[in-house]
Amino acid sequence: MRWSSSFFHTASRVFNEYPSWSKSVLVCTVISGGGAVAFCDVKPESGNESPKKKVVVLGTGWAGTSFLKNMKSTSYDIHVVSPRNYFAFTPLLPSVTCGTVEARSVVEPIRSITRKSGVNIHFSEAECYKIDQKNNKVFCRAVGIKDKKSGVQEEFSIDYDYLVIGMGGRSNTFNTPGVEEHAHFLKEVDEALKIRRKVVELFERASIPSLPVEEKKRLLSFVVVGGGPTGVEFSAELHDFVHEDMALLYPELKEYVKITLLEAGDHILNMFDKRITEFAELKFARDGINVKLGSMVVNVGENEITAKERSTGRVVSIPHGMVVWSTGIGARPELVEFMKQLGQINRRALVTDEWLRVEGSDNIYALGDCATINQRKVMEDIAVIFSKADKESSGKLVLQEFKNVVGDIIERYPQVDIYLKKNQMKDMASLLKKSQESGITVDIEYFKQALSKVDSQMKNLPATAQVAAQQGVYLADCFNRMELCERYPEGPIRFRGVGRHRFRPFRYKHLGQFAPLGGEQTAAQLPGDWISIGQSTQWLWYSVYTSKQVSWRTRFLVVGDWGRRFMFGRDSSQI
Amino acid sequence: MRWSSSFFHTASRVFNEYPSWSKSVLVCTVISGGGAVAFCDVKPESGNESPKKKVVVLGTGWAGTSFLKNMKSTSYDIHVVSPRNYFAFTPLLPSVTCGTVEARSVVEPIRSITRKSGVNIHFSEAECYKIDQKNNKVFCRAVGIKDKKSGVQEEFSIDYDYLVIGMGGRSNTFNTPGVEEHAHFLKEVDEALKIRRKVVELFERASIPSLPVEEKKRLLSFVVVGGGPTGVEFSAELHDFVHEDMALLYPELKEYVKITLLEAGDHILNMFDKRITEFAELKFARDGINVKLGSMVVNVGENEITAKERSTGRVVSIPHGMVVWSTGIGARPELVEFMKQLGQINRRALVTDEWLRVEGSDNIYALGDCATINQRKVMEDIAVIFSKADKESSGKLVLQEFKNVVGDIIERYPQVDIYLKKNQMKDMASLLKKSQESGITVDIEYFKQALSKVDSQMKNLPATAQVAAQQGVYLADCFNRMELCERYPEGPIRFRGVGRHRFRPFRYKHLGQFAPLGGEQTAAQLPGDWISIGQSTQWLWYSVYTSKQVSWRTRFLVVGDWGRRFMFGRDSSQI
Repeated sequence: MRWSSSFFHTASRVFNEYPSWSKSVLVCTVISGGGAVAFCDVKPESGNESPKKKVVVLGTGWAGTSFLKNMKSTSYDIHVVSPRNYFAFTPLLPSVTCGTVEARSVVEPIRSITRKSGVNIHFSEAECYKIDQKNNKVFCRAVGIKDKKSGVQEEFSIDYDYLVIGMGGRSNTFNTPGVEEHAHFLKEVDEALKIRRKVVELFERASIPSLPVEEKKRLLSFVVVGGGPTGVEFSAELHDFVHEDMALLYPELKEYVKITLLEAGDHILNMFDKRITEFAELKFARDGINVKLGSMVVNVGENEITAKERSTGRVVSIPHGMVVWSTGIGARPELVEFMKQLGQINRRALVTDEWLRVEGSDNIYALGDCATINQRKVMEDIAVIFSKADKESSGKLVLQEFKNVVGDIIERYPQVDIYLKKNQMKDMASLLKKSQESGITVDIEYFKQALSKVDSQMKNLPATAQVAAQQGVYLADCFNRMELCERYPEGPIRFRGVGRHRFRPFRYKHLGQFAPLGGEQTAAQLPGDWISIGQSTQWLWYSVYTSKQVSWRTRFLVVGDWGRRFMFGRDSSQI
Repeated sequence: MRWSSSFFHTASRVFNEYPSWSKSVLVCTVISGGGAVAFCDVKPESGNESPKKKVVVLGTGWAGTSFLKNMKSTSYDIHVVSPRNYFAFTPLLPSVTCGTVEARSVVEPIRSITRKSGVNIHFSEAECYKIDQKNNKVFCRAVGIKDKKSGVQEEFSIDYDYLVIGMGGRSNTFNTPGVEEHAHFLKEVDEALKIRRKVVELFERASIPSLPVEEKKRLLSFVVVGGGPTGVEFSAELHDFVHEDMALLYPELKEYVKITLLEAGDHILNMFDKRITEFAELKFARDGINVKLGSMVVNVGENEITAKERSTGRVVSIPHGMVVWSTGIGARPELVEFMKQLGQINRRALVTDEWLRVEGSDNIYALGDCATINQRKVMEDIAVIFSKADKESSGKLVLQEFKNVVGDIIERYPQVDIYLKKNQMKDMASLLKKSQESGITVDIEYFKQALSKVDSQMKNLPATAQVAAQQGVYLADCFNRMELCERYPEGPIRFRGVGRHRFRPFRYKHLGQFAPLGGEQTAAQLPGDWISIGQSTQWLWYSVYTSKQVSWRTRFLVVGDWGRRFMFGRDSSQI
């Protein structure tokens, strides 16, 4: 019993710690205003005389900013390159589109985020257009105004010792014709502001007295493509804006407004629990938002959008005044070029190992939406794992030998964790026992059989702010402790080499996800499959989003905006 | 004595009432949040069956909005046409350029301003491109997106019974080459936002590591043309923004920043009292703002601006990153065409009579910056005034005859008022007495001589928000009481015709003017030549501008913005 409890303790450390940790973080952040992306305010250490390593960070989104905020070591010179000199709290972008919160309230200049950290951080507002991996150099181009005479933009290059790529993705059009030209996206602050202006413009145009009714109806037909959290939240925001605010100022137009949500799959919010999906679909039906499931968009025209209904094969055209395209993300063109250099062809993102290091490089890291972790399969490594565990090369593992490596296996292959959790097995030993009740030694075939199903639990991490932010924290922590961990590696055993890995691999902790549905109703799927729907969840959403703000300024502004919206509604001035 | 007091009472009613009225309004507005542009909330009167007159209002600036807010009569159908669907509190635009207040905080949708008035008001977001006076029709073009295929914008026409033109002016470039292409203006919200983005962009560009120092200096050389209140306030705002906020985030660039203010005249703020001008010039010298007086700009290039020094005749070139042009206003091109129709050639604005009616028309009114009142001279009318007063046609005026018309003279010719006030004469009689001590009758020659100097007191009203707002209130009041005043005219005697004018002519009441100078210092010139300079005046400025806000929403937001600025500084995210 004691053995079992000790074994259980070792083996389940990781996945037992997480749920409770994640819950406490959740509570913590709600109460304290801290959160995963906590502010660091550390003064430079003195007496560090070794030459500083040059770190170049590309991007100031969730990944890059979270990395920068958590950098505490003064042994680096950091140069940040991004076309945006600010960090944007992207989960509030759907609220920006209708003026529920203002754009300024969800952004914070990257310089003011990094100013107090004590780390030497320089920022350049520029785009990186080329990465020269061979010479450890990035080539950049200043954004903004060109030299009018020559039409040339200022260019420069920066050397690096380490490169951290957090450039994010771009909206994926799946090469649907007309999307680039006629649809609006919702990934950047600029795009949210464009949508806001366009919505008001459409109402103003529809008010022109000489316009025929058909044209008014077309102008006020809003089509949202993609039933993921962004598309759903935008539809809900738009519905509220129209019915709570615009209906008062443009009462004669209310009857012409139509919101259509096109989703290629069978349900909206299909990454959420079925109960949430059902609630959302019912609520939208009640609100008069026209949800069309199984509709594949085949063309976006200036005035109409064409979709194919999967069930009937029919092609349907919908006249529109505006299309918002929100169907997931693809690779940025600058990175596609770099991926070719690395031999990563036809990937949707830069492939990294479990330590976020880009495959094919040893000093380039990638995180956030532009990266994907290539988790190694247990079955690919099964032979080396076995031989590493089998210290005496007996061809058999005794329980003690197995015990010695099980922690490392779980750390190195998180799918094992998930498998154990899903199958409610308390420890690795019971997995083995299940396969082989008769003895206490295991040969390679049994070992393979026991682990044969764990790889099915592997899945890519979602392209969310949460993942990017955690990766930033993780990588900054690695950089902060680089020297220490060189000397005292803390990662799992290298099954294919000698010694241990320097760091533990990155492990994502899912803290839950919200889906605001409008009318002060929000659905949330929290860790432990805890589902919460309704107005109380909306208040939870307010608290969590307040606490997660990157600065006290944005926190103050976002809360102020919500208050202003309750008191005075949303503004429809066309600026 | 009794006679004199009664006479004084009649004669000085106007100019005695005003200072006290203006003071009480000032106090009132500070305390109550009301103000000259007070909100009207009147329900439609019932039982009014006569066909409604169609009023078309062009413009939603100070003049148009103030007119709309004060319309209470339900006997009109009002159609408002403006390219902006909002009213902007323009005196805060210099604060918007640097993010002291947000653009959204100084605008209010015109529909929400007029929604509660109970008057039938329709709004179209469009530009009026032609006025057909003969057929009582305006031609308009919807703003915003064009039909992409045909490139045509939606056009429509509106009939009117009365037309109210409040389209404002445009920045006057005095045909200086390069201004349109390379300078920024500061009349519209868009322009203020462009300046804000540009300032941050210039700092970002100057941060590019590869840039030579000379180029950094050029980029951060800000040139403001025009030493009026707007130019001075913008310079002060920019100085504060650079030194209070940007210096923290871009410490390495602080030394390169230079602000130059070019003024063609001998002093900045030359419409203010000498003490204010001196204080402002001293403060700017202390702040390091380079004020160049007597500098006539002759050319604005992409990277440098050329000015001629009046005193030496030297031509000087100043490299610049940005030029802000703020030298007064000129006529809008749409109106120049209409002025030609009316035979008003080479005028800077539409000429109206003292009742704001456009000369050459009897149902078109113009107010605000696009209009100028053609005040009749006393000396032009002296013969008819005399003969009207001389009821017995004796060729002499006895005192009683004069007494009977003096009130009308003062009302019709405000310059008489000003002359009396300036010369500290209590009443008209003393003016006459001065000329003719010997008797109590006056012949035409003496009458002429007595009034010979009053016309020198005539001056055009300044192109300010205050004038426009008061004109709007005045005109709305005339429209509200149109029927009543047709029956019971309340204006002065028609010296050139029969009976009385329907309405009293428009009379401007100057409530004072502020000049914010940065660093929480403001100068104010208040009625009665009361001068106030310093931090307390800044607080007066805060109170007055808070009270003058057009809605509780903007009041809440502007005060919130000031608070945010005190706590967190100004935002420099480039959105």
